[in-house]
Amino acid sequence: MKAAYLGPPGTFSEEALLTALPDVEPIPYTTERAAILAVDGGGADVAVVPIENSIEGGVTGTLDTLAHDAPGVSIAGEIVVAVTHRLLVRAGTKLEDVRAVVSHPQALAQCARFLDAELPRAERIAATSTAEAVRDVGASGEPRAAIGTALAGQLYGCEIAREGIEDEPGNQTRFVVVRRTADVVAAQGAGPFKTTVLFAGAGDAAPGWLVRCLSEFAFRGINLTKIESRPRKRRLGHYLFLLDCDGRADAEPVAGALDGLRGHCEEVRVLGSYSSSGA
Amino acid sequence: MKAAYLGPPGTFSEEALLTALPDVEPIPYTTERAAILAVDGGGADVAVVPIENSIEGGVTGTLDTLAHDAPGVSIAGEIVVAVTHRLLVRAGTKLEDVRAVVSHPQALAQCARFLDAELPRAERIAATSTAEAVRDVGASGEPRAAIGTALAGQLYGCEIAREGIEDEPGNQTRFVVVRRTADVVAAQGAGPFKTTVLFAGAGDAAPGWLVRCLSEFAFRGINLTKIESRPRKRRLGHYLFLLDCDGRADAEPVAGALDGLRGHCEEVRVLGSYSSSGA
Repeated sequence: MKAAYLGPPGTFSEEALLTALPDVEPIPYTTERAAILAVDGGGADVAVVPIENSIEGGVTGTLDTLAHDAPGVSIAGEIVVAVTHRLLVRAGTKLEDVRAVVSHPQALAQCARFLDAELPRAERIAATSTAEAVRDVGASGEPRAAIGTALAGQLYGCEIAREGIEDEPGNQTRFVVVRRTADVVAAQGAGPFKTTVLFAGAGDAAPGWLVRCLSEFAFRGINLTKIESRPRKRRLGHYLFLLDCDGRADAEPVAGALDGLRGHCEEVRVLGSYSSSGA
Repeated sequence: MKAAYLGPPGTFSEEALLTALPDVEPIPYTTERAAILAVDGGGADVAVVPIENSIEGGVTGTLDTLAHDAPGVSIAGEIVVAVTHRLLVRAGTKLEDVRAVVSHPQALAQCARFLDAELPRAERIAATSTAEAVRDVGASGEPRAAIGTALAGQLYGCEIAREGIEDEPGNQTRFVVVRRTADVVAAQGAGPFKTTVLFAGAGDAAPGWLVRCLSEFAFRGINLTKIESRPRKRRLGHYLFLLDCDGRADAEPVAGALDGLRGHCEEVRVLGSYSSSGA
């Protein structure tokens, strides 16, 4: 089974993929969009892409591709991964000799207090991904360190100098497993289940429209775990909403809420019902 | 008056700033966050920063800085700018000789169909901003083109080869004018007015909490023009909401809705009431 993920090899996405689906053939793509379109177009059987991070928020490349450009796919599962950063060096490099720290700007920012305390004079260098940073440090003759994953360290010949160097504990990324809708059987497992719905209204400019939509869930006691607005790409002031709720779309009470929602909206689309990770 | 904006010189942010506030001294900052913090800390009197684009959605650097890190500032106004892209070259460069097109990846993406039709064999090269791209092309001896603003063309010695090369018309960016709260007098002008409110609930996990919050506006016939969720940066599943509505916070019906909202929330903060641009 071919599994598309956000590359290059050694990213958090590949770690998440291999944790959830250890027996697949991982294929790296350069964007979340390209990974999802590979499934939609038949070039891969499944994609694992980040959809939300507890600090950075929604991953717009994933949200917008699911909303606009990949009508043939569904969300078949979710994976929540604790984001923990490691400082990686080439074997033999001592921390006191390190002159530069390389990583994705978000990773550098998330470890800023550690770096200021432990490597105050090392230059910070931006890379396009944490995996690229580790590859760079593994190939460089300079005394450098990278912030990245353990998997990238193995791939690119670096060893772990320090673990858990992020400033804030509790950083988590939620990934979704994307498959062709035709390949998804009804939500599997014992539950609890979660459903992701997209909706947009012709009448979305009227006062109270969003309340009427959300009331379909509230009246039925359905818990919403997430709501996100995204542009409809027409002009400012036109949005669609992506909502996560507890329960499955093919059973009450969610099925009734979706029927009610259709009465208020121009477009309602279930992006998937799947086993909830609890996040 | 010192005005902070998202640099370098020649960006859409500087164009928006100079359109709205022609008599200020523009000071470029490298991030939206740094521009807002300059106002909060007293290093600048006003900042003009993008908050939303009709294709890309919310600008998280602006939203999160206003929500978490700049307690002393308010939104004092908004500016909506139509985003139109220009193809810029050094004087004398012919389009048929162009071997590479340089711009911010978003600008390259927004002009993809034009580039595929008119410059199918030119390499696409990413720059950190449209202004950097124009500066690069102005300084290069190579036959290159940049996608950028007319202002950047003037600054960096390039001329306009083609105008309006974006694939989708209607691309707009909304900027906010940020000032220290102590410097903002009550919302000025004849209106109509718009209010931006942040709210977050201790009880945000209970079914119906968001409906109860939004109902305070719906019951009073107040139109919501935007709602956006952002992480509270604790762990997944904890969000705050940023809401734009018609009307001003110091007059009914919005004042009453805010009183009602406080009854449901751990935190309610008015980020500003200001003249609406109509978007």
